[in-house]
Amino acid sequence: MTPTINADRLWQSIMAIAEIGAIPGNGSCRMALTPEDTAARALFIGWCQELGLGHEQDAIGNQFLRRAGTDASAKAVAFGSHLDTVPTGGRFDGVAGVLAGLEVLRALDDAGVKTRAPLELVNWMNEEGSRFRPAMMGSRVAAGTFRLADALAITDDDGISVAQALAESGQAGPLTPAPRDWSAWLELHIEQGPVMEATGADIGVVVGTMHARYFQLSVIGEPSHVGPTEMGRRHDSLAAAAEIILAVEKIGRAAEPDGRASASWIENIPNARGNVSHLTRLHCDVRHTDAAAAVAMEQTLRAVLSDIERRRGVRIEIDPYTTFGPILFDQRLGSLIRRKAADRQLTTRDMVAAAGHDSVLMAPLVPTAMLFVPSVGGITHNPKEYSTPAQLAHGAQVLLDAVLALAG
Amino acid sequence: MTPTINADRLWQSIMAIAEIGAIPGNGSCRMALTPEDTAARALFIGWCQELGLGHEQDAIGNQFLRRAGTDASAKAVAFGSHLDTVPTGGRFDGVAGVLAGLEVLRALDDAGVKTRAPLELVNWMNEEGSRFRPAMMGSRVAAGTFRLADALAITDDDGISVAQALAESGQAGPLTPAPRDWSAWLELHIEQGPVMEATGADIGVVVGTMHARYFQLSVIGEPSHVGPTEMGRRHDSLAAAAEIILAVEKIGRAAEPDGRASASWIENIPNARGNVSHLTRLHCDVRHTDAAAAVAMEQTLRAVLSDIERRRGVRIEIDPYTTFGPILFDQRLGSLIRRKAADRQLTTRDMVAAAGHDSVLMAPLVPTAMLFVPSVGGITHNPKEYSTPAQLAHGAQVLLDAVLALAG
Repeated sequence: MTPTINADRLWQSIMAIAEIGAIPGNGSCRMALTPEDTAARALFIGWCQELGLGHEQDAIGNQFLRRAGTDASAKAVAFGSHLDTVPTGGRFDGVAGVLAGLEVLRALDDAGVKTRAPLELVNWMNEEGSRFRPAMMGSRVAAGTFRLADALAITDDDGISVAQALAESGQAGPLTPAPRDWSAWLELHIEQGPVMEATGADIGVVVGTMHARYFQLSVIGEPSHVGPTEMGRRHDSLAAAAEIILAVEKIGRAAEPDGRASASWIENIPNARGNVSHLTRLHCDVRHTDAAAAVAMEQTLRAVLSDIERRRGVRIEIDPYTTFGPILFDQRLGSLIRRKAADRQLTTRDMVAAAGHDSVLMAPLVPTAMLFVPSVGGITHNPKEYSTPAQLAHGAQVLLDAVLALAG
Repeated sequence: MTPTINADRLWQSIMAIAEIGAIPGNGSCRMALTPEDTAARALFIGWCQELGLGHEQDAIGNQFLRRAGTDASAKAVAFGSHLDTVPTGGRFDGVAGVLAGLEVLRALDDAGVKTRAPLELVNWMNEEGSRFRPAMMGSRVAAGTFRLADALAITDDDGISVAQALAESGQAGPLTPAPRDWSAWLELHIEQGPVMEATGADIGVVVGTMHARYFQLSVIGEPSHVGPTEMGRRHDSLAAAAEIILAVEKIGRAAEPDGRASASWIENIPNARGNVSHLTRLHCDVRHTDAAAAVAMEQTLRAVLSDIERRRGVRIEIDPYTTFGPILFDQRLGSLIRRKAADRQLTTRDMVAAAGHDSVLMAPLVPTAMLFVPSVGGITHNPKEYSTPAQLAHGAQVLLDAVLALAG
């Protein structure tokens, strides 16, 4: 019997996870290591136990679920994604990849298929980075690009550290985070954009990612009174930050269609109704499919910041704290996905990922591929985020077929 | 013996209050009903008890300290200001007025002078409005322009209500807030601007206040992902708010020198690094010496908001929650201050107050006057806020002389 995805079971599993931390409008809020994220992880592990999977967990909270192969010496074929969400998240970002992976294992059990190589399903900790920055924290630490001790010390906006959140949620495992001995890493994800829907593609073959550059900015002005202080005597950090936000947006618009730029986080001090603000912090990023273009976007931003400093008599501190990409994924695996999609009469389209994904961290360590399923209306990080049961099942089937081809 | 201000004692008292909630750079942070504000109130009341003053306190926390006169049927002459500060406050805003009033009473005791009319020294609750908006809360409630129940229900950014803060600080008195039976209300305050220093005036005779109009704005956009969402498909509430902040600044600049406009408070949701923001709240105000010009500034702002709504596909809710002024203070009292200053060889200058003051609430109820002392460098709501001991003593002496003229 050919292993076949059960579209309904996959859909029901996604809906069951979505109920945990449900927010109005069909969305979910399960930021990393919150009680909601912890509950979703427990439900997921319960399902894995029903399949008799081996469960390992590392000190940064990454979860590895293993199905044995017939050849104990063979390297595992690994796949998965993440269960955490942004505060106003949808039901599919990350979750679709983890539960498509679970459905692959369920379908293999249903068909009584044992692979030669072991299979490993992964739920990475804190991919979103909404509560603890940077994003892709679990995979960064596992990949060795970010030190465990540094990650544990990071605090959220309430001053709670990753170490404390891991301890309180019971999500710190005994394993030392490290690269795993895998032959391949595959990640199914929703597109998070409108291109596949617009072009009628069933499966996106992700050939690589944009280059993204992240900045934490501090604008330092001078406190004064909103009433008697003439406009010309002010050094208003919030007004300076407003200029930066619009400059970032303009840089993003100028870089369309292959570039983006965003300012999405702000902290204003003293944030008082009677006071001209004197310290405003901003988070922003620039990204582009062409790495040199992303660097040029940063240069434009830095020139704008210098100009704002000069004109407004404020000081701007720039912390360019991280980047990701550009990553080129494994071309042999990309071809495999194209072939497996074609075998199922599904159309494919080569895609460049604009968002960061855990696969970005795996690509330098192990042959890596990502496959996208369409996002209806291209809406994502939004309760309205939606992919149809059939779109998800098609993606999971191609994932299953590719896993079988790799694991023998 | 002619009652004379003790400049050193006044200065030492101001410095003693400034130590409570001291912040780096010689400033103070004593937001209304915080432990610091409560401690400053207790120190002040202790000083008043040493003078044997009667102490009454109303349910919104306003403090009334009474020195008996020889004619029990005469209406009291009242004066004072406020002891609370903004988060990055200086040592003089409000405090100078309360402690100049205390020094008036101490000087009368020193000279063994008993007035015919009673004297009443006042510390108004929450003049600044930094923690609980609106500003001038205590005087608003006492004046009857704001209902006590509504004020008690207002919460700070941590969700603590005025009622809870009053109860926990022990500052809710037994008196029902109501207009007091006064013959005059006088308030000494620092200028909070550079005009008196620049023109060499010792005493500012405040003839009235600007007209100010306050707005709480909510910008409602659409959540999406900062990576894959093309710039043109975004409805970014933070970028829209940035446009508003700069528009407010531009409206303020166009209204110089007699107008101001400020945006000083922002709240951004979800304020996550991976999410285009979908709800941003802003606080702003426009003000002008000419009330019609302030109304015109609001009209310009509303036109800008409509344009932003249309261009960006966002919705902007406007809550024009309060105004103050324009108030014309009592001209007879203004003349009295001018005469008393001249008697002391002090120069005067007529001023229009740009900030709100408790006197704005008293003016419709009782003949009201304000006198300003210079602010060095015009810097205020800033730890660098400074007036010299001599400037403060000159102001207190004119206050004392005016009080004596009124109280007989």
